[in-house]
Amino acid sequence: MRSSTDARPGAVRTDGQRLLGRLAELAAIGDTDDGGCCRLALTDADRLGRDLVVTWMRELGLQVSIDGIGNVVGLWATGAGAPVMTGSHIDTVRTGGRYDGAYGVVAGLEAVETLKRADVTPARPLAVAFFTDEEGSRFPPDMLGSLVYAGGLALEEALDTQSIDGSRLGDDLERIGYAGPTPCPGLAPHAFVELHIEQGPVLEDEDVLIGAVTGVQGISWQELTVRGQANHAGTTPMALRHDAGYVAAELTTYARRLALELGGHQVATVGRMGLQPDLVNVVPKQAVLTVDLRNSDEGTLREAERRMTARAAELAAAEGVTVEPRTLARFEPVTFDEQVVGLVEQTARALGHTVRRLPSGAGHDAQMLARMCPTGMVFVPSVAGISHNPAEHTRPEHLVAGADVLLHTLLALTGRHEPDGGVATPAGSSGTAVAGGGRR
Amino acid sequence: MRSSTDARPGAVRTDGQRLLGRLAELAAIGDTDDGGCCRLALTDADRLGRDLVVTWMRELGLQVSIDGIGNVVGLWATGAGAPVMTGSHIDTVRTGGRYDGAYGVVAGLEAVETLKRADVTPARPLAVAFFTDEEGSRFPPDMLGSLVYAGGLALEEALDTQSIDGSRLGDDLERIGYAGPTPCPGLAPHAFVELHIEQGPVLEDEDVLIGAVTGVQGISWQELTVRGQANHAGTTPMALRHDAGYVAAELTTYARRLALELGGHQVATVGRMGLQPDLVNVVPKQAVLTVDLRNSDEGTLREAERRMTARAAELAAAEGVTVEPRTLARFEPVTFDEQVVGLVEQTARALGHTVRRLPSGAGHDAQMLARMCPTGMVFVPSVAGISHNPAEHTRPEHLVAGADVLLHTLLALTGRHEPDGGVATPAGSSGTAVAGGGRR
Repeated sequence: MRSSTDARPGAVRTDGQRLLGRLAELAAIGDTDDGGCCRLALTDADRLGRDLVVTWMRELGLQVSIDGIGNVVGLWATGAGAPVMTGSHIDTVRTGGRYDGAYGVVAGLEAVETLKRADVTPARPLAVAFFTDEEGSRFPPDMLGSLVYAGGLALEEALDTQSIDGSRLGDDLERIGYAGPTPCPGLAPHAFVELHIEQGPVLEDEDVLIGAVTGVQGISWQELTVRGQANHAGTTPMALRHDAGYVAAELTTYARRLALELGGHQVATVGRMGLQPDLVNVVPKQAVLTVDLRNSDEGTLREAERRMTARAAELAAAEGVTVEPRTLARFEPVTFDEQVVGLVEQTARALGHTVRRLPSGAGHDAQMLARMCPTGMVFVPSVAGISHNPAEHTRPEHLVAGADVLLHTLLALTGRHEPDGGVATPAGSSGTAVAGGGRR
Repeated sequence: MRSSTDARPGAVRTDGQRLLGRLAELAAIGDTDDGGCCRLALTDADRLGRDLVVTWMRELGLQVSIDGIGNVVGLWATGAGAPVMTGSHIDTVRTGGRYDGAYGVVAGLEAVETLKRADVTPARPLAVAFFTDEEGSRFPPDMLGSLVYAGGLALEEALDTQSIDGSRLGDDLERIGYAGPTPCPGLAPHAFVELHIEQGPVLEDEDVLIGAVTGVQGISWQELTVRGQANHAGTTPMALRHDAGYVAAELTTYARRLALELGGHQVATVGRMGLQPDLVNVVPKQAVLTVDLRNSDEGTLREAERRMTARAAELAAAEGVTVEPRTLARFEPVTFDEQVVGLVEQTARALGHTVRRLPSGAGHDAQMLARMCPTGMVFVPSVAGISHNPAEHTRPEHLVAGADVLLHTLLALTGRHEPDGGVATPAGSSGTAVAGGGRR
C-alpha cells in the first residue's frame, strides 16, 4: 500500500530495463539487420508484432478489444466513465526505425505495469491502444486506423483501400486475423495522450529533453500523373519532346524551391517517382510522383498547394503534356488541448526535466483522437533528428524519461483511488482540468 | 529470262503487297493491341518472331546460320567471295512500334524474293541478317549482337550480360533455342546496307522520301546512383536534407538545359528513374537514373559528358549526397563509307525519289558492321517523327519505295550474273566502287 504522497511526480517510476526490453523484443519482429525495422501495415510482420503486443496486454490483465479496422485497445477497467487513453501504432515504413510508434505503445503498457506493481489504481479506466496503418506507407492515407476510430472515414470505405502492391485492406486484415467485432467509430476517451519520438532535430538542437506538443502540421499528399509522349531518345529533337519525366523532375525541384520561398515550417517532399516505359533510350511517356506538403498554418499550406498546381499547369503547357492530380491525403493543422499541453509541460518540470512547447511536423494518431477528446502529445529527442530510417535512435535515458512523463500525465488525468475509497488529484495538478472532460 | 537492261533501277521492283504482308505477320507477334509491338530481346515473343523469319529464310532457299550470340544470317550463296549483307533486328523496346528493325529484315527478304522471281542472280552472294538485342532495352547495351558479330565485344562477356529483370543473356539464349554454333566474330561482308525507318522528323519535315545516312551519332549511356539519407518528410527541415530524389531531379532538368546549351544535334534524355524507399512520406535515400547523351561530334559529346559530371559533383556537394556513375554504353560517332552513301543517293535518284543526306540520331546495327566493311543505310520517313511508341508509322508507299532503294543498292553492290556467264555492273553505277572491298 502506498500513501497519497506517492502520487507526486517521481514517486512512482518507470522500470527502464523492462521498457527497453519490450522495445527490443518488438523490434526483433521485422528486424532489417541494419538496426531498422520493416513492419508494413497488415503484412505478416505486422501480424506478429500485433500478436506480441496483445499477449503483453493480456498478461497485464487488460481487456483486449479489436475493432473493424484492426485497432486494438487494451482496457484497464478500474472505474466508471470514459477511459483516459494512450497509445500509438506498431506499423513502420519500409525502411523504418525501432522507435517510431512502437515506443508510445510499449510505454503505455509500461505505465500500466508500473502502476499495478506500485498498487496504484487509477480512478478512471486507463486504456492503451495501437492503431492500424498509421504510416500509410502500404495503404495510403496515413493515420487510417485512428481516422476510422474517430469517425473521420467510414469503415466500409477504409476496408476498400488499395495497397501500393495491389491488395485490399479488408482482405489483408482478414488474412492476418485482425478484423475485429468492436464497432467503428470507437467510444470517445476522456482524454488522449500519445508519447512519441520527435523524428526531428529541434529538441536535440536546443538540448531540451521533453517536448510538450502544441499540435500537428497540416498535411497535403498529392499524386501527380504526368502524361506525355514516348519517343526515341536519339532521334527526337529536344524542342519536339513531350517528356513526362522531365516535367516530373521540374516539379520535384520546384517543390524544394517552394518550401524555401514560403519558409517557416513549410516542408515539401517528392518521395515516390515512377516512369513509363522506364527505358534508357525512350523519352518517358508517363511519370507518377507524389508531393508531400506540410505546414502548421492552414493558409500557408493552401498557398503551397496553389503554387504547386500553378507550376504544374505552366510546365504542362510548355512541354505539351498533361498533369493530373489526385489527393491521397489532406489533413488540416491540428491544435492540441491547451490544458493537456499545459499538463505535459508541468509534469515534465515536476519530474525535473527540461521542456519546451513545439508543433509536430509528422502526422500522429493523436491528431485524429483530438477530434473526439482533449488530446496532447509528449516528445523525446531523436538523435540527429533522423527517423523513417534504420539509424533512427533515441538515447535510452531519454526513452525512460519520456515514459515517466507519460505515466504521470496519465495518472494526473485519471486521478487515483485513495485508500479511503476517495479520489485524489495529483499533487500540484492545478492544470489537470480537461476541457470537455469531467474533473473531480 | 530478263535482259541485261533489267538491271536498271526500276526494271525489277518490290512486291508491295508481299512486303506489307510479311511486316503485318511479324507485327502480330508481340502485338500490344494499340498498334504497337513488344518483342523484348530473348523473350518468348522474340523467339516466335525469330522462328517466323527463319521459316521465311528457309522458304526462300537461304542457308541459315546462327552464331553464338543468336545473330541469324540467311545466305543466298550465288557465287564466290564475301557476301553483300543487309539486315537489321527484330527485337523491340517494351512499348515499341511495328517498323523499327523489322522493316529492314523483311525488306531484305523481299529483295531476295524479288530477284529470285525475276530470275536475276547476284554475282556475289547476298545475305540477310537479323542481330540479337539491338534495342538493349532488356539487356544493355544496345546493338549487342552486331557488336559481338563485328568483334567489338567478346562472346563470353556478352553472354554474361544481366537483363534489367535479373536473368543472364546466355541462359535466355539457350532457353529460346538461339545459341548457335557459328563462331563470333562473324565473317566480314563485302559491304553492308541497312534499311530503317528514320525514327525522327527530318525527312517528313522537308518532304524528302529517302535518306542517305551519312553516319550515326555517338552515344553515351550512363547510370547514376545518388545516395543520400532517408528521413521523415514532415519533420526534417529542408536545410537538413540529403535528398537523393531531389538531386536526381536536378540532374534530369540539367540534362535538358545541357542539350539546349550545346545546341546542334545534341540530345539528352533521362529515361529511367527509381527511388528508394519510394514512399510518399520518406525523403529518398537513393535514386538511380540513366542519362542518354548523343552527338554526331565526338568532341561535343565528350563536353556534354564533362558538364554532366561536373553538375553531378556540384549537386552532390551542395546536398550532402554522393553520385556514382556507371557506363552502360559508349559508342563514338560513326561515319559511313562515302561510296556506299553516294550509291544510296544515286540509286534513290535513279528510281525517281527525292533524297537527302542526313546523320542518324539512333544507334543501328550498321554502325557495328561499319567496323568490318564499307557500310551505309537507307532511311524512309517516320510520320511525325514518332518511334519507340505504338504510334510509330511509315506510309505504305514509303515502305515500298525504301525497299526498292535497298534492292537496287544491293544489286549494284553485288553486280549480277549476265546470261553469257559474265558479270555486269548496274547501269550508271560509276559510284559503286567500294573502298576496302573488291569490285569487278
